[in-house]
Amino acid sequence: MKYSSETVERAIQELSKLPGVGRKSAQRHVFYLLKAPTEQVLALSRVIEELKHRVRYCSVCHNITEQDPCYICTSEKRNRGLICVVEEPNDILAIEKTGEYHGLYHVLGGVLSPLDGVGPDDLRIKELLSRLDADVKEVIVATNPNTEGEATALYLVRILKPMGIKVSRIARGIPVGSDLEYADESTLSRALEGRIEM
Amino acid sequence: MKYSSETVERAIQELSKLPGVGRKSAQRHVFYLLKAPTEQVLALSRVIEELKHRVRYCSVCHNITEQDPCYICTSEKRNRGLICVVEEPNDILAIEKTGEYHGLYHVLGGVLSPLDGVGPDDLRIKELLSRLDADVKEVIVATNPNTEGEATALYLVRILKPMGIKVSRIARGIPVGSDLEYADESTLSRALEGRIEM
Repeated sequence: MKYSSETVERAIQELSKLPGVGRKSAQRHVFYLLKAPTEQVLALSRVIEELKHRVRYCSVCHNITEQDPCYICTSEKRNRGLICVVEEPNDILAIEKTGEYHGLYHVLGGVLSPLDGVGPDDLRIKELLSRLDADVKEVIVATNPNTEGEATALYLVRILKPMGIKVSRIARGIPVGSDLEYADESTLSRALEGRIEM
Repeated sequence: MKYSSETVERAIQELSKLPGVGRKSAQRHVFYLLKAPTEQVLALSRVIEELKHRVRYCSVCHNITEQDPCYICTSEKRNRGLICVVEEPNDILAIEKTGEYHGLYHVLGGVLSPLDGVGPDDLRIKELLSRLDADVKEVIVATNPNTEGEATALYLVRILKPMGIKVSRIARGIPVGSDLEYADESTLSRALEGRIEM
């Protein structure tokens, strides 16, 4: 059953392509937009178009940016001896939020995942290697602490260590504010393993 | 903490305005769109704009349409003696799906809700009354079976009955395929009340 308006139908179809949006939510969005002020709807339409025209990837670290290289890569305040390797651009935001990291970044664009057909050549590993000049003292691997993220971290260690570069991995352990009781075993064993002298 | 790209930030803000979309989902949508084919992203942008330019409300029944009056109001196959009153245009789709109804519709544009400041003048009740000529034999009130929907139905009955028009209300009862055991009391008592001789 389709809507009497072909445009409404098409809008539902296009919105359903967004991650986690089914036909029902897309329908709600469309009815919301039909009632919303024209200005707001046009602003949404325009900014979606601009995403494709204005936003690009930094040619150095592959973070999203509107100027190339991005503001982190060009900043004079960042420690150029430190490169933090992440899976996706949004991981950079998460780390920047801490305010604790002042080095550079490198976005891999995913993780090794043989089942999904993602091999080393599909990630920006060559691009990482080309950035490793004498200035770089340490590479911090901040891929997610799941199977693929760990495998990718190990892969990077195996390449980078023989090059004489210090490679570190973000700590896995009990999240701040949570409860030992509810931690799963592998997290807890990682937390014990990674204990720090006080 | 904001994204390095002002456009990404703006896209997140505009998408967050959609019903049920928070900042996190909006972020996911934006990253999805950044990776999606340009063609698809532009199609989405365009169809959102078209929603405002092409889709309007039928001047007779207030259903969404691209031609005025809508295809239901102009159809020769519909029973013009029957008007089904619904809250919103998507209710029409739900009823059309049954394939059982062949009359006309009237979209109220909401329900009476004094708490939200919605009174009779905010609904398209006057517009409904102006449609009630000698041809109209029955008005079916298909507002939702909740407090506001019932109040609105009662209000309509009180206006329409004195005009000598037959007013009916869609049946409330046990949903087909469900279980008596799990039906709430008011639904069950409505089901008993509305029993039909076999």
